[in-house]
Amino acid sequence: MGSSPWPPKVSMELHVKNRDKLLSSLRQHLSDSSRPLHGFVLLQVSLSAFIFLPFLIFLNNLYPIAFAQGGEEQTRYDTDHLELFRQESYFAYLFGVTEPGFYGAIDIATGDSLLFAPRLPSEYAVWLGKIKKLSDFKEHYMVSTTYFSDEISSVLQQYYQGAGKPLLFLLHGLNTDSDNFSKPADFQGIDKFDKDLTTLHPILTECRVIKSELEIALIQYANDISSEAHVEVMRRTKVGMKEYQLESIFLHHTYMYGGCRHCSYTCICATGENSAVLHYGHAAAPNDKTLEDGDMALFDMGAEYHFYGSDITCSFPINGKFTSDQSLIYNAVLDAHNAVISSMKPGVNWVDMHTLAEKVILESLKRGNILSGDVEDMMAARLGAVFMPHGLGHFLGIDTHDPGGYLKGLERRKEPGLKSLRTIRDLQEGMVITVEPGCYFIDALLLPAMNSPETSKFLNQEVINRYKDFGGVRIESDVLVTAAGCYNMTKCPREIGEIEGVMAGAPWPAKNISTHASNGLQI
Amino acid sequence: MGSSPWPPKVSMELHVKNRDKLLSSLRQHLSDSSRPLHGFVLLQVSLSAFIFLPFLIFLNNLYPIAFAQGGEEQTRYDTDHLELFRQESYFAYLFGVTEPGFYGAIDIATGDSLLFAPRLPSEYAVWLGKIKKLSDFKEHYMVSTTYFSDEISSVLQQYYQGAGKPLLFLLHGLNTDSDNFSKPADFQGIDKFDKDLTTLHPILTECRVIKSELEIALIQYANDISSEAHVEVMRRTKVGMKEYQLESIFLHHTYMYGGCRHCSYTCICATGENSAVLHYGHAAAPNDKTLEDGDMALFDMGAEYHFYGSDITCSFPINGKFTSDQSLIYNAVLDAHNAVISSMKPGVNWVDMHTLAEKVILESLKRGNILSGDVEDMMAARLGAVFMPHGLGHFLGIDTHDPGGYLKGLERRKEPGLKSLRTIRDLQEGMVITVEPGCYFIDALLLPAMNSPETSKFLNQEVINRYKDFGGVRIESDVLVTAAGCYNMTKCPREIGEIEGVMAGAPWPAKNISTHASNGLQI
Repeated sequence: MGSSPWPPKVSMELHVKNRDKLLSSLRQHLSDSSRPLHGFVLLQVSLSAFIFLPFLIFLNNLYPIAFAQGGEEQTRYDTDHLELFRQESYFAYLFGVTEPGFYGAIDIATGDSLLFAPRLPSEYAVWLGKIKKLSDFKEHYMVSTTYFSDEISSVLQQYYQGAGKPLLFLLHGLNTDSDNFSKPADFQGIDKFDKDLTTLHPILTECRVIKSELEIALIQYANDISSEAHVEVMRRTKVGMKEYQLESIFLHHTYMYGGCRHCSYTCICATGENSAVLHYGHAAAPNDKTLEDGDMALFDMGAEYHFYGSDITCSFPINGKFTSDQSLIYNAVLDAHNAVISSMKPGVNWVDMHTLAEKVILESLKRGNILSGDVEDMMAARLGAVFMPHGLGHFLGIDTHDPGGYLKGLERRKEPGLKSLRTIRDLQEGMVITVEPGCYFIDALLLPAMNSPETSKFLNQEVINRYKDFGGVRIESDVLVTAAGCYNMTKCPREIGEIEGVMAGAPWPAKNISTHASNGLQI
Repeated sequence: MGSSPWPPKVSMELHVKNRDKLLSSLRQHLSDSSRPLHGFVLLQVSLSAFIFLPFLIFLNNLYPIAFAQGGEEQTRYDTDHLELFRQESYFAYLFGVTEPGFYGAIDIATGDSLLFAPRLPSEYAVWLGKIKKLSDFKEHYMVSTTYFSDEISSVLQQYYQGAGKPLLFLLHGLNTDSDNFSKPADFQGIDKFDKDLTTLHPILTECRVIKSELEIALIQYANDISSEAHVEVMRRTKVGMKEYQLESIFLHHTYMYGGCRHCSYTCICATGENSAVLHYGHAAAPNDKTLEDGDMALFDMGAEYHFYGSDITCSFPINGKFTSDQSLIYNAVLDAHNAVISSMKPGVNWVDMHTLAEKVILESLKRGNILSGDVEDMMAARLGAVFMPHGLGHFLGIDTHDPGGYLKGLERRKEPGLKSLRTIRDLQEGMVITVEPGCYFIDALLLPAMNSPETSKFLNQEVINRYKDFGGVRIESDVLVTAAGCYNMTKCPREIGEIEGVMAGAPWPAKNISTHASNGLQI
């Protein structure tokens, strides 16, 4: 696996274009609603103080008030243990700044972008590194101008050309995956400004939904290095290892050869019955099982590079050879994965893709004698959600669950399975969305289904009992919606023959790489 | 490096003993102050809700109020991205629980230990794993009894045999490294109890200062695997690599072969002039320099196993051969490291060890013609702090900066260098403390020293200019204070000959491993 690309240098042009896009959307919106084209977009990372805590004791009195807020939760409990800082995603989108403690503003009238850097005390140079000049930040981040963060109020007042108080567009809105609200920027002197808390969030979120070419290139890079790492993991998987050892191989490959310090999410390295636990791998289920002969693996892991992530799941047998029972479930999921990708194009609704995946899986299970009866009746009884309780996929970008899944007015569905969908929107060119059908044997869902008259009639209990400790299969790719169809950015072995080949030492990518996984124009 | 020990199974007996120790200290204290021997010690992890956020949207109305508090900051900003949970350290000390969402209590009258587990909704089994029974937790964590966390108030009321309101000893006190206060436990119904916020913290903190044999064994394990990983890093260091690649090698070695999912702190992988930045490696200085021929490396990295950590620094030349300039500084620090370890034993004061290290370094710099004048005069002018601005070391345990450095009544010193000391206590048998002298060429400290009449006279500016881009050297070992002296738990190559040998491929540990690094009885 020495062929990994060296981490690419990222041009800050990407963020210049992100700002331009926001500016043009926002101006359009203001214009459409006959509002004046002035005011400032203002974003803040609400964590400014935290990095200084190791020597806070010396600095307690040095910091301006606005600067100290928000940071207290970023050490571990009451200690000075610092978690590695990762920029807030909206701020990262607009400014690409990797350091903590910044504010960023965009002047709607002129389009000027302003960065406000923390004013660092001289002790910073001893403990944390060279103190960069404002001009260094201006050049590196390609903004119009830079100031210190204790100058926000005076600078913005000075910039403002209109009458009355200048208007600040602050970020405040609901994240529909977490049900959390983003925290609007705050600083000393904010009372001298008018505040608009409703306009910015939906517009900026929508900007993030449609990816630019430069954004796509980064998501592609994260996919390339993560796909490669998945193949490395497959090759090194052996009976007797611990699940976390495969996590370690993945993390090492993406960092060592790909420069990815962060993952998009905690690695899910589930084998055997653990593969039926959808979010396995967390502290209470920490990838600590020993790999056993005959088990399936479900490894859901993705690296992040310069904020942009990947989200990839591979499922394969630990011992490198699929049994017929394993093939049945695996191909049911692969057929669903491929059917969805073959159908994806602008205008297609995501709920239809979800139900398409369900239907393909149910049909396969019926052919495999796990289910019997009419598939349409099964669909009506929501039997699909017994085997795939999660949604088919989600937007992917700077966040693993990238925002924008529910436009204002769209309501979450209530039915099992559908209620778990992170978006129900129509596809548009430039969206990047995961396609991750799965089929799991989860007691907590199967037992109630067997006891319910509406669903028990479809379930061939004897055959299902054979799958009691099977766990589950998930196949997850990151897919870009193109003008004419879509493009699968993930390059992992997917066909059973490909997986068995790679695990036995065959080269990857194979010479005749399968093309099942995309449709329409390739990019 | 295939000789790594397989991660040991940890006996929960360790935490039983920790609780017994607290109980006996607390009873003694109450008895000494003629207070009744009843009431409950109560600890809570203030993060209970966070792990449920991925499917919070389905559960919003299922959770009891007390259960939901405190968790909102543990997702990344407004998203549902979850950081990997790591137990709060005091709670870990007493109960060893790895899962979030628990409360723990100790009945002072009977000594019974009670764990209160979160009552998990059935959806947990689908998304996060098998729902364990209360009896599973009782057996695994070796506590007297287990309940659900929504039963705390009624259970404790029932347990209580005395008159009036039962008394809760809650954890509230200052962490002298972060200047943060620990958050006392809270739950619905707490108003039915009397609260004592002052007694528990100093007593429990003092329990943590003196390590038991079982605790020492875990710190030794973390040291063994981390020492081994440091050797692996030394061997693979080559000109042209990136600093973060060495970080990746360290992380991989300790996780893959040692089962260490967490590090004690963010890895500091500094080379060249970065090695003069004491806390290099954070997001604004992210281990991203290319290794250059002639540079020194300063790698400060330590893994954690079952909560207990290690904290180890190795300094060595990138190209595997020390120049005479590098040898001078390296040996100055090594001599200080060894002099301190040779002098450590119960009753010795830590400030004296710090000044001993300073003095040895200043003497070496004088011999090397970097300084001239009387070393005692240099000490009086606090010149040592120009070259070593940090403290000599800190307690190590469940936290990297383990608490208890300043007993009530001890005041932090004001002088440069000494003010950075994380403890000024006398050594006692059972303390584990880092010994980490360093010598750095930091412009931000050297320039003022050159301009000050009190210090400029000692500084041979021409010679110092030769070290302008040198960076610095730190050598850090984790040392256990024994009855008769101390024991160095860290097993890295330290002598120049050992380092050059290992980097050239010699085996490690060497057959005739140097014994300079401990004194008194070995354990």
